[in-house]
Amino acid sequence: MSSILTQDSSLMANAIRALAMDAVQQANSGHPGAPMGMADVAVALWGRHLKHNPANPQWPDRDRFVLSNGHGSMLIYALLHLTGYDLALSELRNFRQLHSKTPGHPEFGITPGVETTTGPLGQGLANAVGMALAEKLLAAEFNRPGHSIVDHHTFVFMGDGCLMEGISHEACAIAGAWKLNKLVAIYDDNGISIDGQVAPWYIDDAGKRFSAYGWDVIGPVDGHDVELMDRAIAKARQSAAKPTLIIAKTTIGKGSPNRAGSAKAHGEALGLEECKLTRDALCWTHEPFVIPEAAYELWDAKASGEEAESAWAARFATYKAAHPELAAEFARRVAGELPADFAQTVVDAAVAAHTQAQTVASRKASQLALEAFTKALPEMLGGSADLTGSNLTNTSSTPPLRFDADGQPTVDANGRLGRHINYGVREFGMAAIMNGVALHGGHIPYGGTFLTFSDYSRNAIRMAALMKSRVIHVFTHDSIGLGEDGPTHQSVEHAAALRLIPGLDVWRPADTAETVIAWGCALQSKHRPSALLLSRQNLPYAPKSGLEDIAKGAYVLAEPAEVGLKQKARAVIIATGSEVQLAMHAQAELAQVGIPVRVVSMPSTTVFDRQSVAYKRSVLPDGLPRIAVEAGVTDYWWKYGCAAVVGIDTYGESAPAPALFKHFNLTSDNVAATVRKVLSK
Amino acid sequence: MSSILTQDSSLMANAIRALAMDAVQQANSGHPGAPMGMADVAVALWGRHLKHNPANPQWPDRDRFVLSNGHGSMLIYALLHLTGYDLALSELRNFRQLHSKTPGHPEFGITPGVETTTGPLGQGLANAVGMALAEKLLAAEFNRPGHSIVDHHTFVFMGDGCLMEGISHEACAIAGAWKLNKLVAIYDDNGISIDGQVAPWYIDDAGKRFSAYGWDVIGPVDGHDVELMDRAIAKARQSAAKPTLIIAKTTIGKGSPNRAGSAKAHGEALGLEECKLTRDALCWTHEPFVIPEAAYELWDAKASGEEAESAWAARFATYKAAHPELAAEFARRVAGELPADFAQTVVDAAVAAHTQAQTVASRKASQLALEAFTKALPEMLGGSADLTGSNLTNTSSTPPLRFDADGQPTVDANGRLGRHINYGVREFGMAAIMNGVALHGGHIPYGGTFLTFSDYSRNAIRMAALMKSRVIHVFTHDSIGLGEDGPTHQSVEHAAALRLIPGLDVWRPADTAETVIAWGCALQSKHRPSALLLSRQNLPYAPKSGLEDIAKGAYVLAEPAEVGLKQKARAVIIATGSEVQLAMHAQAELAQVGIPVRVVSMPSTTVFDRQSVAYKRSVLPDGLPRIAVEAGVTDYWWKYGCAAVVGIDTYGESAPAPALFKHFNLTSDNVAATVRKVLSK
Repeated sequence: MSSILTQDSSLMANAIRALAMDAVQQANSGHPGAPMGMADVAVALWGRHLKHNPANPQWPDRDRFVLSNGHGSMLIYALLHLTGYDLALSELRNFRQLHSKTPGHPEFGITPGVETTTGPLGQGLANAVGMALAEKLLAAEFNRPGHSIVDHHTFVFMGDGCLMEGISHEACAIAGAWKLNKLVAIYDDNGISIDGQVAPWYIDDAGKRFSAYGWDVIGPVDGHDVELMDRAIAKARQSAAKPTLIIAKTTIGKGSPNRAGSAKAHGEALGLEECKLTRDALCWTHEPFVIPEAAYELWDAKASGEEAESAWAARFATYKAAHPELAAEFARRVAGELPADFAQTVVDAAVAAHTQAQTVASRKASQLALEAFTKALPEMLGGSADLTGSNLTNTSSTPPLRFDADGQPTVDANGRLGRHINYGVREFGMAAIMNGVALHGGHIPYGGTFLTFSDYSRNAIRMAALMKSRVIHVFTHDSIGLGEDGPTHQSVEHAAALRLIPGLDVWRPADTAETVIAWGCALQSKHRPSALLLSRQNLPYAPKSGLEDIAKGAYVLAEPAEVGLKQKARAVIIATGSEVQLAMHAQAELAQVGIPVRVVSMPSTTVFDRQSVAYKRSVLPDGLPRIAVEAGVTDYWWKYGCAAVVGIDTYGESAPAPALFKHFNLTSDNVAATVRKVLSK
Repeated sequence: MSSILTQDSSLMANAIRALAMDAVQQANSGHPGAPMGMADVAVALWGRHLKHNPANPQWPDRDRFVLSNGHGSMLIYALLHLTGYDLALSELRNFRQLHSKTPGHPEFGITPGVETTTGPLGQGLANAVGMALAEKLLAAEFNRPGHSIVDHHTFVFMGDGCLMEGISHEACAIAGAWKLNKLVAIYDDNGISIDGQVAPWYIDDAGKRFSAYGWDVIGPVDGHDVELMDRAIAKARQSAAKPTLIIAKTTIGKGSPNRAGSAKAHGEALGLEECKLTRDALCWTHEPFVIPEAAYELWDAKASGEEAESAWAARFATYKAAHPELAAEFARRVAGELPADFAQTVVDAAVAAHTQAQTVASRKASQLALEAFTKALPEMLGGSADLTGSNLTNTSSTPPLRFDADGQPTVDANGRLGRHINYGVREFGMAAIMNGVALHGGHIPYGGTFLTFSDYSRNAIRMAALMKSRVIHVFTHDSIGLGEDGPTHQSVEHAAALRLIPGLDVWRPADTAETVIAWGCALQSKHRPSALLLSRQNLPYAPKSGLEDIAKGAYVLAEPAEVGLKQKARAVIIATGSEVQLAMHAQAELAQVGIPVRVVSMPSTTVFDRQSVAYKRSVLPDGLPRIAVEAGVTDYWWKYGCAAVVGIDTYGESAPAPALFKHFNLTSDNVAATVRKVLSK
């Protein structure tokens, strides 16, 4: 290697170090250690390999880059700024301040070029697995001989923390099984975590571990030798049928004379004096936030990015000429737009469900809805965390996803690519991988497990909500109604707990029509994740006069007149899911004794809460006492001003479901008695 | 091996198979595959190695056995029944029925001999790591030359599902770092999970993986060859400084002619016809639930168990004679009793905090409380998921836990054993390991992370609550008050979400005194886990007239008279944690304009909810409008009949904390304005 090259690399890396150190110092908050330690690796990747166009962060065939150790956010901010993204120096000066484009951890949607929100460790890595999967599937679906319009890599930086987290196991093990050869994970192996030198609590042989997952492993490589890293990345990009782990040995806080290699470099500003000493050590003569023009020139990726995207655009034009329908479909898919007639598909499916009025479990109702929707939407990519036959997430349109020995997705006997994923027993991994699939674009991911295990994946659900990603969770076996599996599997608090996550739509439909509408709303919510809570046990169809208000989250299901009473309702029973039938029976029982009540079905509190005040009042009139019924904790329901709540505030029990409903006094008799008690006050 | 031995083993194994198959058939619910597949391994372990006394499931020095693949519950029920525990055949006939001792998944506290509740996969394995850690630490603390009163193994059975779960990575990696040589994990490697043959989604080389963690690996061994399994276990028991993984190759549903080796064997009854065919194939001529006397005799562990415990009791008597104080302390510790003077220690610490009235972050207040309590309670075993300096879980009494090359816990310069664990970045693993430590007995585990990452460990927190285990979670950085780290780290919904978990006490103290009391209550709650939600930022001491009501979860902190108003309060402001100061300021502001309000500090809603109606009314009088203030989602607070709630129903932002409180309108001005608005209605 020439000494000029070395000088150039050094200048590039030190520009990152200076920006990271100075921005953290300016904010007096942040993490200088990782950016300073990974600066040379970043030179190798971003300076020599990454395919991207700073002018268009949405270019579909760009390489994806994920900073899984998101606390090192100044690394990516520096890179985006230096390579030419719309991220001005003033934003870097404003690091971690209100409304800046440089929040404490990288946030999708805030900063151009940030592909996913990271910070909760391990999840960025799992997102990257999802992105690499999406790339492979889209390539298989859309590329044609002579036309390679989907062909990019996914690179991820990650630290010890990411690799200690359990989700790294789930995501990387399945990445190996999926043979994601275009996934390159670079491990910042600096031997330091917040509590100090990791040896007493982290002794994994990471190479051996990833080899056990079926990955190629390169290194350890000196992470401060740009040439070696360059070669390692070049080799990784050539992998035929395996993802690659590159172990980069680095020094955290590299450049700081007194903090490099220590936990002190990790999560706090170096201090003005140490910043000065670091400048001296790096021979960096520039003031804070002053980057020499030579560094900008070396980093500038605008021209090369423009050229790369133009070349792709030309290829895409040729493709479009040869395959106009495929090209249009590709454009629709990556834009995340549903087919124009999809709204009608939802209406048709809902009407059909209403007409057939079947008594089935809502998990089965979900599968029936999915039959229609997976047929209409080739972008739907289903899956289950090893509970396919229980979650009923598969349909006749979704063959299981499989890969051949060369790592290519296989087609079934009918020539169809797989669209239903066996995620294995990896709930958190599944959720975070789905986030990555959604972020990549081209698919709408959905995946199933038991509702109780939403606990395992909870933070990834939250991340989807924070990122406004269209990811759909199918949570079956939604209460004590699952019966014999007992309290570990009975989700008494989970419906309420999920509803607390800002930006997540939670649906607990009562019958087939509500389930169809719930799916329809979830699929049509381009910027919002949804969770569907579904029963294991059969639920009767709830007769209704219309379907249009279901999508508003709650609606008047039955007025007193419908059970033969002419008076106006004296109370409202609010119910969800499997308890709507209890409300209906209670209404009939109360009618027998001349008490008129209204039944409101509320499949989605989160959606209902967004309706107009007028609509909300029309469903829940002022002055009418409200009684809520749900087979779960009662705390949540008081927000609707209820006079009483019938629910379960303890854990469930192991027994057949009918015995449990009786045991927990979740009966129509008790609902009716509760209404009478409220009215007698 | 002699053929008689083989015949005996076969009879023993088939007794398990018959009971499992017949109980599942009787319930028409359950999982026959794992018990039938693991029956021979169980013969080797329970028939030849396990040290236990069926007459006394509480014998402190028994081996611990964990069925991490808890769906195979009939395996452990059969073993407990056959070896002589208080588990009658009638209970097995009553499998999965209401109030039986044989719930769908094994539940601690229901069935004698069940050491932990399992079912949520991977957690049993992590519990076992905690148990093995507890054994090692107690042995180091209490054994003396010539006196080995703590010396037992922890055995765990686990399936593919457990090993796919991320928590298996966290728990097993740290078990390797801890050199838990008395931990023996036996992997039921049957190649089948619910979705079928695992190969498309699970290709891990488990041996290589565990070897990368620093484990010894034995096998693959034929899991149906009792002699080979016997030898493998014998070898594993001799491991000097490493935990051991034994890979047992088995056939799921072994014995069933048409279902063995297939996913159909996993989770449903075989059906009467297949039960009959299985009987024929096994040459098992007995009716359902009829076990031949010969099988009972072979399995009976009552005499050997009695003998083993007696021998230990004799050793313990000798130990007691030589070390009477240690013996008494050991007895106290394993009984989980606090020292008699501990209640006074809490009072003293609370009074000291009250007197000093320091302005500190509540995480710092927690560390101050811990200084007193870790000194008083040698059983406290602290830790942090790589955030020790942030969570402030360590004290001058808790040296870091370290192990030497031989796997022995080391002592520090003052001869003290480690009592603070660096768990690494493994929140879920930490929580489940703490559950295991608590279940083992002898320690009170506590561990810290950021509140937002309670999501990662949520299901283990739930499991502690379900098992009524004394495990204490220290969750710092408890709202937007952490500032610049931004929305990924700001736990707007977590306080509310944790309060929904039945049986968990959640504390969000406002100052040093409340923090001391919260810790005191948590430590004194022998049958309940607790979570302490603590601030990153400083909180002023809230002047108060007394301390005794804090332990009731909520109390009147300030009446109008205390801000110079003689009228009775016209409203109540309820606040928690960092928002109590806002309530106090608002009270003063309102006093300026002649509006008298009461301030209630409610550090624990869950504790307050258990108080008498009279006490609750005394704090929150009927007819007085209530306004709640908390820097989190508002939904939860309506349960207290609030007229208004001041909170945050969106995600946070990245900025310095003062800017955020202003941005989100969490100000005393807004609280005061809200009160005025409520009163003007």
